[in-house]
Amino acid sequence: MARKQMVRPGGRSARVQEAVHGAVRELLEEVGREALTVPMVAQRAAVTPSTVYRRWGDLRELLSDVAVERLRPDDAPEDRGGLRADLEAWAEQFLEELSSPPGRAYLRDALLGDDDGANATRCSDYAADQVTLILDRARARSERPPPLEAAMDHLVSPLVYRILFRPTDLDAAHARRLVAELLDGPIGR
Amino acid sequence: MARKQMVRPGGRSARVQEAVHGAVRELLEEVGREALTVPMVAQRAAVTPSTVYRRWGDLRELLSDVAVERLRPDDAPEDRGGLRADLEAWAEQFLEELSSPPGRAYLRDALLGDDDGANATRCSDYAADQVTLILDRARARSERPPPLEAAMDHLVSPLVYRILFRPTDLDAAHARRLVAELLDGPIGR
Repeated sequence: MARKQMVRPGGRSARVQEAVHGAVRELLEEVGREALTVPMVAQRAAVTPSTVYRRWGDLRELLSDVAVERLRPDDAPEDRGGLRADLEAWAEQFLEELSSPPGRAYLRDALLGDDDGANATRCSDYAADQVTLILDRARARSERPPPLEAAMDHLVSPLVYRILFRPTDLDAAHARRLVAELLDGPIGR
Repeated sequence: MARKQMVRPGGRSARVQEAVHGAVRELLEEVGREALTVPMVAQRAAVTPSTVYRRWGDLRELLSDVAVERLRPDDAPEDRGGLRADLEAWAEQFLEELSSPPGRAYLRDALLGDDDGANATRCSDYAADQVTLILDRARARSERPPPLEAAMDHLVSPLVYRILFRPTDLDAAHARRLVAELLDGPIGR
């Protein structure tokens, strides 16, 4: 979304990032997470291991960085012509992507390498940016959307919490119920 | 809480668990997470490394197991005589414990060693058990509490999500606002 890249696109730094991220994604497929090492990634990316260590610190940070990049949305949320329909479509897609085994692994990796919380905050900002677009669109249609932080608390939070901590019975119907509770309240009566 | 222990208290297995968990907690304080190794833990706990590997698989699983144990509540939630007051007191305490740097590290560790999601589910069950006690108490007072899963979605989820992904501006006032939104809805208007 609108978030600034930390790396200038097209520069050497961006090329290194692209090569190293690509190597990690390929090797995760080929050898799996447990067997992955920094020298292996460096060899595949055709950089020196010290380039990787200098830039990412260690494998955990690198995996976290790759994960956050994978969690970045490719497109703006679909416009279905109304706030409720837009939120439902977004929530269902968000749930589908993140509740898959790779989606869940990326979420955990994003938290992992992340002692200062910066990568986790980037993930949350991606979701907030998408939801903001939906809420702005609703305002432009003269609908009265809830504030962003209410949507983060009552729609995004329960989806992510359940994906990570409480996956049983989490489905598209639950995502739609959360949208209804956000827009119609009161909750759970 | 009501949760069954996987290990019979007082048996050899329980003694090993206690010694190994204690060793991990001490060594986390003394040498930090990065320097911790299984042989170091085994030596401190006076067991063989193979005992640790056999039971926990690897260091990540062991750290995850220790984290979940640390997240287990010691006491039933305080009874303040009413649903709203009970939920507010519980939410404020939950937030205070988990948003500290060690609390956040334990939450992340619980997710970490956890490919099948079992440890994360245990964490969520601890919170659900505490909230269930509060809701049952409210029913016994002839109050009309929301269903457990609504409280998980709209009170527990946003607290945990914000602790992990969006810590800015998260404070006791936010916890109380979540309680109000759960009990009074509609949200965020």
